Amino acid sequence: MGSESAAVCLRCVDCAADHALEYRLACAACGGLLEIVYDLARLADAPLTQAGRTGVWRFAAWMPVHDAANFVTLGEEPTPLLAAPRLGAALGIPRLWLKFEGALPTGTVKDRSSQTAVACARQFGFDAVGVVSTGNAASSIATYAARAGLRGVVCCYTRSTAAKMAHLHGVASSVVWYDGVYDDMIRPFDEAVERRWLFDGGATRNAFKQEGKKTVALEVFDQLGRAPDYMVYPVGMGETLLAGQRAWKALEAMGRIARAPRPVSAQSREANTIAEAWRSGGPLRPKTIGYTVAEGTAVGDMGAKGRLTLRRIREQDGLAGDAADEETLAMQRRLARTEGLWAGPTGAVPLAAAARLAREGALDPDAEVVCMVSESGLKGDWPAPDVRGQQPSLDVIRRALGRGDC
Amino acid sequence: MGSESAAVCLRCVDCAADHALEYRLACAACGGLLEIVYDLARLADAPLTQAGRTGVWRFAAWMPVHDAANFVTLGEEPTPLLAAPRLGAALGIPRLWLKFEGALPTGTVKDRSSQTAVACARQFGFDAVGVVSTGNAASSIATYAARAGLRGVVCCYTRSTAAKMAHLHGVASSVVWYDGVYDDMIRPFDEAVERRWLFDGGATRNAFKQEGKKTVALEVFDQLGRAPDYMVYPVGMGETLLAGQRAWKALEAMGRIARAPRPVSAQSREANTIAEAWRSGGPLRPKTIGYTVAEGTAVGDMGAKGRLTLRRIREQDGLAGDAADEETLAMQRRLARTEGLWAGPTGAVPLAAAARLAREGALDPDAEVVCMVSESGLKGDWPAPDVRGQQPSLDVIRRALGRGDC
Repeated sequence: MGSESAAVCLRCVDCAADHALEYRLACAACGGLLEIVYDLARLADAPLTQAGRTGVWRFAAWMPVHDAANFVTLGEEPTPLLAAPRLGAALGIPRLWLKFEGALPTGTVKDRSSQTAVACARQFGFDAVGVVSTGNAASSIATYAARAGLRGVVCCYTRSTAAKMAHLHGVASSVVWYDGVYDDMIRPFDEAVERRWLFDGGATRNAFKQEGKKTVALEVFDQLGRAPDYMVYPVGMGETLLAGQRAWKALEAMGRIARAPRPVSAQSREANTIAEAWRSGGPLRPKTIGYTVAEGTAVGDMGAKGRLTLRRIREQDGLAGDAADEETLAMQRRLARTEGLWAGPTGAVPLAAAARLAREGALDPDAEVVCMVSESGLKGDWPAPDVRGQQPSLDVIRRALGRGDC
Repeated sequence: MGSESAAVCLRCVDCAADHALEYRLACAACGGLLEIVYDLARLADAPLTQAGRTGVWRFAAWMPVHDAANFVTLGEEPTPLLAAPRLGAALGIPRLWLKFEGALPTGTVKDRSSQTAVACARQFGFDAVGVVSTGNAASSIATYAARAGLRGVVCCYTRSTAAKMAHLHGVASSVVWYDGVYDDMIRPFDEAVERRWLFDGGATRNAFKQEGKKTVALEVFDQLGRAPDYMVYPVGMGETLLAGQRAWKALEAMGRIARAPRPVSAQSREANTIAEAWRSGGPLRPKTIGYTVAEGTAVGDMGAKGRLTLRRIREQDGLAGDAADEETLAMQRRLARTEGLWAGPTGAVPLAAAARLAREGALDPDAEVVCMVSESGLKGDWPAPDVRGQQPSLDVIRRALGRGDC
């Protein structure tokens, strides 16, 4: 039986050196980021999806896992792609589609890369997989590690929210609760990764881990039957945009679509390094960031991944936008009231940033736009709204209905 | 173009009187509960599912909505049905399957009935739909009302949890926040329903609203290709068990399966009226209930729905179990650690109750058992676990991995 995967090698994004398809986190020649190269002729000859498979494994040939025995799944079906003409018209994006990632098991797009992370950990003989995270990535990695029977060893600081801490405490085989911030923990974690104590489930450099996120683009293609004009991604480390666009560019190279969608980067205004570089035309400049409600975009220094993200946006005629926290929260509620979709703040950033780009004239109003809603609002620790209780009566219902006639 | 639906009339569960298929909440002859009767020959002639449809509308002929223009969907795909042989063997249920309803848009099985509630509200010309609920049912009804462009007018007490209140506040067009308990509000609400100010989205009596829940059984049949020996349902008002078993019995009557699964009712021990009646062989006795972590099963007086649930369990050779809160919480964590599924407490009750029935010898160890996991754990307001932070170092990772050799 042949390999399930059409992956052929690792290639450096900087010096283009090729490396064998082994567990390797950086280019041996120049230290650059690696991406996985696939046999496009083989992908072109096969049907896009495989019947009877779930999760990212519906696109198994596009993933870097050779043996189906290493696949791990929680039975994920394609996430909804919803037409939103009413909301779109109001925002100046009449041909708007929403890709709702909240339907995934832990409520975020991270469940796509966690499937490839844990499957690749198995493939390369690891018995543990880990990540340093404030909560979402950690609970996602731990979830798939549990399902696969591997150890999920995740590092989370003790200032995370109660709901995230409870989820992690429930699902992870080991949680390293630490005092301090990400930068304090990532150094010893990376040292443990170098010693091969555990498979790297982080977003900074592991080419195998991130591959699952390509499937958000492949699903859109499968659901829509074509490429949209734009695809809007939330950007923290840039992983989703990079992976999604790799899939679209491969479909373009194979002739399945005439042209890949133009990528749109969406960030919180508090962490808008890509947007600032794109607007100024200059290089990416790290910034010291403060609090933002959109935690998933709270990355002030994206490092090499950031430079690659900016390069790809420029090469692919993309756009970069941002949204202030109050715009994000207003969009979160508007999305709920208008379409019923309850997004977390990070999940509402792409639509808030796209609406601003539309208002500013950067986004063509005739364009077909697929906008990711990357996170469910069910995950949040929300403050209770400030409401006043009323005495139960028919009259309070009458008033809520706005009826004066009864 | 003919009707999408094979529904033909309403029938009283007590006196068997038939009524035309209009919006009616009780039998005109005896006041009994009504159920919808379908043309089984027509269902038998059609394929089970309809391609290109999502949500409960994949089974449109089995739903009471005639015109597809009234359908409402958030793009729901079938929820995962996961084999859990490792966990099953440990619990004495080796042929265990888990049906994970947390993948639905608001994270619970209620999204199935909310689809039929809102579509039927449209069908019968209502511009508003409402419910009295501590949170989950209200946010689900409000979600689909928003998507359909109807008004969602939901009544929620001010002692609900912050996360539920924030969700409701975000998604509902009107929330009646009230002081008091359910019993205080349901009387004026029912009066508003009688006046036809709004469509009844509650679980007590509306035969149209509940139909969507049949699809949990139809999906299991579609995914498994057969009927299991048992299907385990969480029981609050009994709606899911009643609806699921109606679908199974119809499949049996059509000859698509040899025999419907035996239904298993699962309740919190704090609200175990069905379990107590089943064990004693006597009638259903309401009880005054206190706090239970499994909020979705916290019904002390199920009324007519409870009597019907008990009758059907007895007619169909079913079982009834319960679980103490500490068993439920232990099962919640075990399910997460072993399979990666993060359930809310209500969602863990069926498995906790089934495990107890297996221990007590009531559940045949050779049986194939489908157990609902009816609610996502992402919805919870959890207390933060009691953890102590450590100083970041390679050593804390080494200890978490249990490595002594480095």
